[in-house]
Amino acid sequence: MTNLNPNASYSLALTIELPNIAGTLANVTQAIAGAKGSLGQISLIEHTRKITQREITVDASSEEHAEKIVSAVREIPNVKILKVSDRTFDLHRKGKITINSRIPLKSQAELAMAYTPGVGRICKAIHRDRQEVFNLTIKQNTVAVVTDGSAVLGLGNLGPEAALPVMEGKAMLFKEFADIDAFPICLATQDTEEIIQTVKRIAPVFGGVNLEDISAPRCFEIEKRLRQELDIPVFHDDQHGTAIVSLAALINALKLVQKPLEGVRIVINGAGAAGIAIAALLRSAGATTIWLCDSQGIVSLSRTDLNAQKREFAVKAEGSLADAMRGADIFLGVSAPGVVTPEMVKSMAKDPIVFAMANPIPEIQPELVMDHVAVMATGRSDYPNQINNVLAFPGIFRGALDCHAKTITEHMYLEAAKAIASLVSSSQLDPEHIIPSVFDPRVSSAVAGAVQLAARQDGVAVE
Amino acid sequence: MTNLNPNASYSLALTIELPNIAGTLANVTQAIAGAKGSLGQISLIEHTRKITQREITVDASSEEHAEKIVSAVREIPNVKILKVSDRTFDLHRKGKITINSRIPLKSQAELAMAYTPGVGRICKAIHRDRQEVFNLTIKQNTVAVVTDGSAVLGLGNLGPEAALPVMEGKAMLFKEFADIDAFPICLATQDTEEIIQTVKRIAPVFGGVNLEDISAPRCFEIEKRLRQELDIPVFHDDQHGTAIVSLAALINALKLVQKPLEGVRIVINGAGAAGIAIAALLRSAGATTIWLCDSQGIVSLSRTDLNAQKREFAVKAEGSLADAMRGADIFLGVSAPGVVTPEMVKSMAKDPIVFAMANPIPEIQPELVMDHVAVMATGRSDYPNQINNVLAFPGIFRGALDCHAKTITEHMYLEAAKAIASLVSSSQLDPEHIIPSVFDPRVSSAVAGAVQLAARQDGVAVE
Repeated sequence: MTNLNPNASYSLALTIELPNIAGTLANVTQAIAGAKGSLGQISLIEHTRKITQREITVDASSEEHAEKIVSAVREIPNVKILKVSDRTFDLHRKGKITINSRIPLKSQAELAMAYTPGVGRICKAIHRDRQEVFNLTIKQNTVAVVTDGSAVLGLGNLGPEAALPVMEGKAMLFKEFADIDAFPICLATQDTEEIIQTVKRIAPVFGGVNLEDISAPRCFEIEKRLRQELDIPVFHDDQHGTAIVSLAALINALKLVQKPLEGVRIVINGAGAAGIAIAALLRSAGATTIWLCDSQGIVSLSRTDLNAQKREFAVKAEGSLADAMRGADIFLGVSAPGVVTPEMVKSMAKDPIVFAMANPIPEIQPELVMDHVAVMATGRSDYPNQINNVLAFPGIFRGALDCHAKTITEHMYLEAAKAIASLVSSSQLDPEHIIPSVFDPRVSSAVAGAVQLAARQDGVAVE
Repeated sequence: MTNLNPNASYSLALTIELPNIAGTLANVTQAIAGAKGSLGQISLIEHTRKITQREITVDASSEEHAEKIVSAVREIPNVKILKVSDRTFDLHRKGKITINSRIPLKSQAELAMAYTPGVGRICKAIHRDRQEVFNLTIKQNTVAVVTDGSAVLGLGNLGPEAALPVMEGKAMLFKEFADIDAFPICLATQDTEEIIQTVKRIAPVFGGVNLEDISAPRCFEIEKRLRQELDIPVFHDDQHGTAIVSLAALINALKLVQKPLEGVRIVINGAGAAGIAIAALLRSAGATTIWLCDSQGIVSLSRTDLNAQKREFAVKAEGSLADAMRGADIFLGVSAPGVVTPEMVKSMAKDPIVFAMANPIPEIQPELVMDHVAVMATGRSDYPNQINNVLAFPGIFRGALDCHAKTITEHMYLEAAKAIASLVSSSQLDPEHIIPSVFDPRVSSAVAGAVQLAARQDGVAVE
């Protein structure tokens, strides 16, 4: 973790008391800078004749680093540390989402309309025509964010409780980027059949299901079955979100190197949920030569250890990841930190495109190969070209909900990717800008529009 | 339904256009009054030299009545009806609750703390110590409102979609009265075992489970098993909410007639979820003589058609409801409209107490026995002494969540009932005021405090 820069995920708030002696605050900021902390806001809390209290926010690169920064401040004479708080933990305390009423409930008349007896008329109307649930309830704008906690971020099988902060965060993103009401469902089972049955049973409330952080290969079966057995869109974001945004970035990267998708050889490292989905979507988009690799090397027809999903992409070639990359046009990594060396990148074809998307540490640090790649992207916000799912899933669901789609098709994914790519105009396009920012306000509606149109063309839109 | 008064559950908004001729608006209001509509707000929408547009809200007593009112207005010369809308339906469109972010998400730094990579630190902290889920997520304030749609209000088995408007309304009440985040779970199964398994699987996100509108006798087994198998409070509101508020009202009613609970004979009509729970709670509170009745009459030891729950309250007496009521001190109805006659009330002991709680039409209309009862209560807001569950469940869950109760005990119910009763002071207490208003702001915190104290005494509070 030493090569990470200080960032807000290890952000401290130090409350300190200083004597009113010239230069004391400078000593503090110098000590923080000397310990390589990244100084944020400095607020004045109290100021008396003798002392000043301030709150200083500092970003660190790890918990150990944060401790070093605090120690450095502690050693300054005359400076008292009154409180050290971890801003990330403070922010998560009591959770990150809340459920509110859309209408007031302050009088008997309001109660009589929103609840009994008035609500009975609404119940009867839905009982008469089940489709009315899409007009008269939250279903039309509500998405379940479902996990079993088996593959939480890159951290592994942490279980449903430990997955909840991620699912709450996802719900925040749904609201912020697409005005969708999303609610976390963290399941106390990791049995494929039980997950499928449980999601089917809670489905009446939801207009869509976003599967999240469910480990491969179970995630493939769960998604496939839920799609068959539910009449609302089901989307495994770790697969298709990543695939859509990767394709969007690749469309623009290929414009820069002037190679057609049909003609390039693509190496995908990582054959879990994301790797398989990227391979599938690139193939749908027209890619012809995809070499998938896993921890055992190239996913080869000669191997006997492949699951059904990997078998579908097995190729004649054999060998290691290094063998695969030799002469390849494109490397897409959804695997592990540091598995790619500068030599492997240098062995690629002319104008190589490298998307090193492992999080938070990429397959190869961009600094190491800056002069040897035509286009480089990562999953990180502190390098150019961040491949971030939030560019896709809010708009995908916004579009699907708005046209009341019964399901999501591969065609909808392709159109979403094209819509994202199209937001970088030819005049803006350069190797450090192949994909819009996650805060670009056009993204969600552009994706939603493209997804709706595709849904109508595919005959899966009800409205 | 003819004996219902106009109320907000059948509220219309009429947009009309009138010529500017003196007396035309008076014709409209007269026509509405003539059709027995209850006139609400009259708003000016547009005023030109020739015409005036107004929106008039009118409460009706039924859909047929609403149509009659509209017809009456339509017949007035020169008055054009531009639009008729059903205010109850308008209010429910798109649902009644929304999920919001508690913290801003406008910058990369905020994203890095609330979502990846910062959220990973929170996940690891919960993985290390599962109890941290109560500090660092929404679990500490979030309640599942669970139904299978098998007994929606008094309307019967309408299914999970048609039950959703009620569950959304319940979530609104949780927020409004106790600042609890509640989310509706409407299950696409009515199988007891499947309901139990599903609720257990989604439990990691929730700090409590409110069961709602699940038909008897399945509701008893579901509640019992979930209590045994979950470590969070489980509460079937149709049972215990009704029982708690009934007991609260009864405590105060008995003060007025100066009879002790231990000495009275109580008839409960209706042996479903609510009736059984009332019987159980009254027994816990000290009642000794309870005659339960169902549609077949007194739940008697001689009967062979009783389920386990009814058997527990079977008595030696036999006969009809009328037989049971003869000489009884108290009648509590959770049954059906109009099943009690004035003669039956007149046959009761001196100073009879009658709670006719069938909704929306009571077992007997208060007007019919006003001179023959000491105290009368109903489930309705347009008569004195409304027995409304909203007096209990918000405070029950507030108290249970605040002390992180592992379960809810009968003792907690009893203390909740006493707390509600105590809010009517001896100087306020009279036959038309035995129970606080649902809008009395003291109720929820009084109940929460009593429930917490009882939980600590019972050793079920973690904090």
